[in-house]
Amino acid sequence: MLGSTHGTFTTDPRRARVMACGEPPPPTVHGSAPTADDLDVSGRPLHADVPDLDRFFRPESVAVIGASDAEGRPGAGITRRLIAWAERVGARLHPVHPTRRTVFGIPCFPSVADLPEQVDLAVLLVGDPLPAIEQLAEAKVRFAVAFASGFAETGEAGAAAQARLTAAVRRSGLRLLGPNTNLNAFEEFREDLEGPAIALITQSGHQGRPVFTLQELGIRLSHWAPTGNEADLETADFISYFAERPEVGAIACYVEGLKDGRAFLLAADRAARRGVPVVAVKVGRTETGARTAASHTGKLTGADAVVDAAMRQFGVIRVDGLDELQDTSALLARARRPSAEGVAVYSISGGTGAHFSDLAAEAGLTLPTLGAAKQAELHQWIPEYLNVANPIDNGGHPVGDWRGRKIIDAILDDPQVGVLICPITGPFPPLSDKLAQDLVDAAEETDKLVCVVWGSPLGTEDAYRRTLLGSSRVATFRTFANCITAVRAHLDHHRFTTGYRSPFDEAPRSPSPSFRKAQALMRPGQQLSEHAAKQLLRAYGIRVPREQLVTSAAAAVRAAGLVGYPVVMKASGPQLAHKTELGLVKIGLTSASQVRDAYRELTDIARYEGVPLDGVLVCQMVERGVEMVVGVTHDALFGPTVTVGLGGVLVEVLRDAAVRVPPFGQDQAKAMLSELRGRALLDGVRGAAPADVDALVEVVLRVQRMALELGDQMAELDINPLMVLPRGQGAVALDALAVCR
Amino acid sequence: MLGSTHGTFTTDPRRARVMACGEPPPPTVHGSAPTADDLDVSGRPLHADVPDLDRFFRPESVAVIGASDAEGRPGAGITRRLIAWAERVGARLHPVHPTRRTVFGIPCFPSVADLPEQVDLAVLLVGDPLPAIEQLAEAKVRFAVAFASGFAETGEAGAAAQARLTAAVRRSGLRLLGPNTNLNAFEEFREDLEGPAIALITQSGHQGRPVFTLQELGIRLSHWAPTGNEADLETADFISYFAERPEVGAIACYVEGLKDGRAFLLAADRAARRGVPVVAVKVGRTETGARTAASHTGKLTGADAVVDAAMRQFGVIRVDGLDELQDTSALLARARRPSAEGVAVYSISGGTGAHFSDLAAEAGLTLPTLGAAKQAELHQWIPEYLNVANPIDNGGHPVGDWRGRKIIDAILDDPQVGVLICPITGPFPPLSDKLAQDLVDAAEETDKLVCVVWGSPLGTEDAYRRTLLGSSRVATFRTFANCITAVRAHLDHHRFTTGYRSPFDEAPRSPSPSFRKAQALMRPGQQLSEHAAKQLLRAYGIRVPREQLVTSAAAAVRAAGLVGYPVVMKASGPQLAHKTELGLVKIGLTSASQVRDAYRELTDIARYEGVPLDGVLVCQMVERGVEMVVGVTHDALFGPTVTVGLGGVLVEVLRDAAVRVPPFGQDQAKAMLSELRGRALLDGVRGAAPADVDALVEVVLRVQRMALELGDQMAELDINPLMVLPRGQGAVALDALAVCR
Repeated sequence: MLGSTHGTFTTDPRRARVMACGEPPPPTVHGSAPTADDLDVSGRPLHADVPDLDRFFRPESVAVIGASDAEGRPGAGITRRLIAWAERVGARLHPVHPTRRTVFGIPCFPSVADLPEQVDLAVLLVGDPLPAIEQLAEAKVRFAVAFASGFAETGEAGAAAQARLTAAVRRSGLRLLGPNTNLNAFEEFREDLEGPAIALITQSGHQGRPVFTLQELGIRLSHWAPTGNEADLETADFISYFAERPEVGAIACYVEGLKDGRAFLLAADRAARRGVPVVAVKVGRTETGARTAASHTGKLTGADAVVDAAMRQFGVIRVDGLDELQDTSALLARARRPSAEGVAVYSISGGTGAHFSDLAAEAGLTLPTLGAAKQAELHQWIPEYLNVANPIDNGGHPVGDWRGRKIIDAILDDPQVGVLICPITGPFPPLSDKLAQDLVDAAEETDKLVCVVWGSPLGTEDAYRRTLLGSSRVATFRTFANCITAVRAHLDHHRFTTGYRSPFDEAPRSPSPSFRKAQALMRPGQQLSEHAAKQLLRAYGIRVPREQLVTSAAAAVRAAGLVGYPVVMKASGPQLAHKTELGLVKIGLTSASQVRDAYRELTDIARYEGVPLDGVLVCQMVERGVEMVVGVTHDALFGPTVTVGLGGVLVEVLRDAAVRVPPFGQDQAKAMLSELRGRALLDGVRGAAPADVDALVEVVLRVQRMALELGDQMAELDINPLMVLPRGQGAVALDALAVCR
Repeated sequence: MLGSTHGTFTTDPRRARVMACGEPPPPTVHGSAPTADDLDVSGRPLHADVPDLDRFFRPESVAVIGASDAEGRPGAGITRRLIAWAERVGARLHPVHPTRRTVFGIPCFPSVADLPEQVDLAVLLVGDPLPAIEQLAEAKVRFAVAFASGFAETGEAGAAAQARLTAAVRRSGLRLLGPNTNLNAFEEFREDLEGPAIALITQSGHQGRPVFTLQELGIRLSHWAPTGNEADLETADFISYFAERPEVGAIACYVEGLKDGRAFLLAADRAARRGVPVVAVKVGRTETGARTAASHTGKLTGADAVVDAAMRQFGVIRVDGLDELQDTSALLARARRPSAEGVAVYSISGGTGAHFSDLAAEAGLTLPTLGAAKQAELHQWIPEYLNVANPIDNGGHPVGDWRGRKIIDAILDDPQVGVLICPITGPFPPLSDKLAQDLVDAAEETDKLVCVVWGSPLGTEDAYRRTLLGSSRVATFRTFANCITAVRAHLDHHRFTTGYRSPFDEAPRSPSPSFRKAQALMRPGQQLSEHAAKQLLRAYGIRVPREQLVTSAAAAVRAAGLVGYPVVMKASGPQLAHKTELGLVKIGLTSASQVRDAYRELTDIARYEGVPLDGVLVCQMVERGVEMVVGVTHDALFGPTVTVGLGGVLVEVLRDAAVRVPPFGQDQAKAMLSELRGRALLDGVRGAAPADVDALVEVVLRVQRMALELGDQMAELDINPLMVLPRGQGAVALDALAVCR
């Protein structure tokens, strides 16, 4: 699932800069203006803006604006819970209310200005938080939480009110959580649980509850950020902050809409540098869902394929269900770096082993066949007729006595094995209780990952509740599917972050020499002619056919002589698209008379169709190669994106294309090609020569450079087809379409 | 997922026979020889062989051969459990042992011959069940169960022993379960549970346990058939038997390998006629899994794509995990026929509704937008700013009072809505307890399906354990994914079985007039020449280009004149394949001199390559159309299968093909085309004319006829390409390959 992001931007190798893994650049201090070196050539930031949220999550003093103890008021319930929380965490709490003297017996202050000290955090229980923001800023309050709803989630008027709130917060210098959020950040976190914790970020309180409840299964949780409408603080801020916290082992997110695509990627990049896994549910797989998500949180849902690609580029593990979010983040928080990628499947039933292995292999896990010596060792304890090659079937009985532990240790001792998975579908206490205990004991003495799937639909059995869930070292699942998803995510995560090099470190910061030439060709609001679009490509070093733009039949014949027969002739004009359908392309012309006739026919058709031409292109004919498409599209959330796909009928019928959000390196460009279902065409089928994949990758990277430098001035760029010639012969852009914004 | 199987075999419409839905033909009586009318033209049976297993599952008397009460012996534990079971079900139990007088105080008989009555069932606890079979037959025992292992699951010697056992059973007339089975058929089934039951069939006891345990969640189970090695009784027998039982609402299967493909399809067909859903886990998604499954049960695992297609053809719902098997079979056993396919998603959190709807829509469920009047009705109780279009977000509070039930009833009252799903991700007792109770109450008063997803990872909450699981009308799930899978299976099942017409009723029983002509062309063990293969196609009314086989350049020129220019010329010979790569095809020949030259060149190359020719084909050139492939392949489990795919680069690179097991009707032939990813090519892309899909379907059906009549004499048949011309113009087989067995 996850590719690797190694590699440099080959179009500008001078700027390539290597950074050691796990050594992030200094965080941008919030509020300071970004310097030129903080921005890439498109003007987008290169470093995550990491807010210091220590005093938000662990404030020493808190003001509750609009505190109440009037029974029946919702504010009273919240105030009571905040008082209990403040007592628990040892924070001083000050109620603020214009008329009350005390609230639940605690002295109350009439206004923010009257507070007895400079507080870290203000909780706004008032209906309209806007007027309070300025007062809080004057009182030098650092953080605020606004519970009020009725903002962007309700429609246009609410969105306008939220924009005013955002503007006030920006002016104030404080950081705001909400509006339309809740108390989740101030829940009771169990202090007795050990090991690395999950930090949770959700845009809906209800949707975060299942992960929060994991504490009752023994999984530690350190934080919960319920981001609500994200008028200021957003999911990305919390990812960046949590990635720096030593107690956080994994970050679990429930995201309905991303506020800022770039901020999210920079945060994910930061987590990748730190080796902290980010697991996310992102709503918006379908139109229906996307529409609903937008109306729910009032935020932009990007085209899902782009979101999906962007997440993969930066190692974010996307899952679909909240149960997968629980199980995957719990495993990733606690599992150590695997010593090997091999998975051993061990069971007390051959059927269970076969079934689990089938699904695991289908999901891409590697089940190495155990060596002859290891098999012989296992057969000391397991009857000879049972399969111990992997999956390992013990037939049941050996787990009931001293042999059970021996078998587990012998499997874990195999250097090919990094993960041992034991699916127990039906509890049979005489065997499964002992097996569970042996696995827990063995897990304490190994660095390898030990997983159990407890398949009983009840889940009330002692071996599950006490033995397995009581262990901090065995990862326990309820379904085969979730175990496989989580183990695969674990292996993918470590493969991705090992030696991770951030594409942001290697992104160009200043324009290339191509940029000035290209700039001169841009025509704001217009579609360029094919000839002009090809000049744009040439400016970036992308090869186009030999061609000349001519305006007479005689010139066409002269051009054909220079270009070399056979030639292709095409009408060229600023508004032209679908030339082939209009009959405005003539191929395979082999003589002067054919060229002369073609010139007349093309101009006749154009005149008849009323299409203005800037001339007729006489082009070299390029036949042998694989047709691809490469282009730039403007995504509402992420800005310019780069797409590569198979050309001709494949892109037409199957939409066989891969997309990436810049910046990305050469390895991601290669990974794009691997994602294509028709990728084998590039390797040569039916005896065809392999195509020049290196040249194709180079074109993708040059188009990325165009996207970075011109992307915000360009609505669309399409090279269709790019003819990729046999290996060593390059790639030629046979047609191009460019639309300026 | 499921297509429909309507339609007739258009190649022989005279034989088409319409049967009323749900009216199966009389079952074949076991043991009687099949008559000609029981067999299709390939000699395969047309009706399921339905054993009467009443006395197997509910025997009046049982003999336990090899009974023991010697402590520590495995036989003693089994004997004790059998005695308890016999007491529970009111069966008389007779131990048999050569030397013991009593076993656990029950009088023991020295041999089968000494039994005091004719028993229904003998349980064989002896190491080698073979010698007992003849004695049992003499004693007129009807059923036996053999526990012994060491048969086909252990390798070749075991397989031979099993073959001897099968032969003895066939001779005896009794029916055997096992060997390598267990006590699962004689477990304690709860009698207090109501409603339609699940009947369970598993090839592994451990793997059946999760479904069996569903009884503890209130789901009724009626039977469990642990089929073990299937020396005699197999999965198909139990499917057929259970489909006839009035108490069975759904059949759940765990299958590692199918013993007889045809028997399985006939059983599935029988269940489809009865409207009884069959839900199956079938191991073998991957090579690894398949290999393991074969070694575990010693049975053949068919190529997975064929298994998958065959299951879909006959409405078997294939799932991957045991949790899906539980949840899907539990829903299908109990849910009534849906009155509408629309799904309404109702939640106390907008986020939950958006997330669930997103996944549901992606899985193909239909979420109708509620009408304006219905939305206005809901807004009586739900604040105006919340979305009630579907998903319906109540914002939380309304569920806490009298409005909660009103909302549910109003949604259920909408005629578009057939299913109401309420995902509750985080239990919040003040709201979720009341919500759960309202849903249970509402479900009692409606015929529509009400589902709840209880997302808490604990599952120990009262609202879940007592309220929801205590309801016999609410279907409760633990994950979004399983709820969506089960609801989709439920809707698919009813769509499939409504008006189901069995393809077996319409399968040809006697050879077509084509058969004799075709028979004369077959050459056992040989590959036919292109010319002969095309004659085979012509015999079945499949169009081939005008062509002549010639053996001189002069004859070639004469042939070209008759065929009409331009022509294609190809070398033709019995061993020829890959003609294009060898240069043995010349296309676009437009004159006598080109034909003469081509003849010489083709014969020169063939001579040089040492390829024997029967001549050179001079063929009409057919250019404009969509290239497809249609073929017949011999599957080890199911026999001849029919494949259709997109030709050219698509089949080469993407293997874009669909497969079916005969017999199937016209609608399945159409469904095959819908499965192709490149299907849009047939509809015409880039302004191309739509292809003659009717002609393509007709070719598929004619090839099916060939598969039925010649399939067992044919290793392979390949039409590649079949050129499908524009609509109304037919389809032409441009090349054909046929290999006789």
